[in-house]
Amino acid sequence: MKIESYIRDIQDFPKKEILFKDITPLLNDPIATKNTVSVLVESLKGQKIDKVVGAESRGFFFGILLAQELNAGFVPVRKPKKLPYDTISATYELEYGTDSLEMHTDAIKKGDRVLIHDDVLATGGTAKAVCELVAKLGGVIVQCNFLMELTFLNGREKIKEHPIFAAITY
Amino acid sequence: MKIESYIRDIQDFPKKEILFKDITPLLNDPIATKNTVSVLVESLKGQKIDKVVGAESRGFFFGILLAQELNAGFVPVRKPKKLPYDTISATYELEYGTDSLEMHTDAIKKGDRVLIHDDVLATGGTAKAVCELVAKLGGVIVQCNFLMELTFLNGREKIKEHPIFAAITY
Repeated sequence: MKIESYIRDIQDFPKKEILFKDITPLLNDPIATKNTVSVLVESLKGQKIDKVVGAESRGFFFGILLAQELNAGFVPVRKPKKLPYDTISATYELEYGTDSLEMHTDAIKKGDRVLIHDDVLATGGTAKAVCELVAKLGGVIVQCNFLMELTFLNGREKIKEHPIFAAITY
Repeated sequence: MKIESYIRDIQDFPKKEILFKDITPLLNDPIATKNTVSVLVESLKGQKIDKVVGAESRGFFFGILLAQELNAGFVPVRKPKKLPYDTISATYELEYGTDSLEMHTDAIKKGDRVLIHDDVLATGGTAKAVCELVAKLGGVIVQCNFLMELTFLNGREKIKEHPIFAAITY
């Protein structure tokens, strides 16, 4: 199975000149979804994972599937004011201005072995912020994994101190 | 296992006088998460499901786990302008004003047997809008299921023509 064949190109979304990679055809196919989870899990080579962290909101899909497959807890990282309990936050840069992400303070315990997941590694801003949140709580980042890496944006550079895996590269 | 013991009450979130039910402790525990999926699946009594539809964004967590467990495709329903391909939309009432939800036009095929999932059945506005989207595409709604039903809000009334199941009722 080629995962690429379940990713749909959408021209000019969310704005002009952007070629968006739509993962909904992949989610719509249960076998392709299962195989994608397997590819991501195999890249871990049996390493123990305590928590999988997924970024709002497309990181939630494979994030929670990976957590169940690895018998790990799932931790959602969300946009500001979405999480109800005590949070920590990390800021990242956008094209214009900044945004931030939050995580519950009790989501990760010191020494937890953590897998970070998001659908796309683009500029790396989100991934870097998520890494900061995990580090603040004392988590050990085992890997940052992605369905897709847009290599021409060189986001890998921002999180180069951690192992990185992407199921597909463009 | 009592699922209730993994749901945390947060007073005054997202605003004064609201007692919010926080599901993140449940997501943080892989065994409790797995058992919750089993409870939801058992309520279907072996009925075949082609697609599981989950509402943005807390409906994504158990929605996609249910889809994988049932060997069904997963369909995200999202807030306006989040889905990149051709969409249909349905409007629902808020306390003040209205909001709408969107679904990809190719997400469900005529005759598909559909399970609708969300984390909470409250006033039923979201659930009703999701039912409308599924019906527009010719899907057959087998069940609407929820982690929690807030019975005092009587949301069940808005979707009473469909089978309804909630793992926990308050």
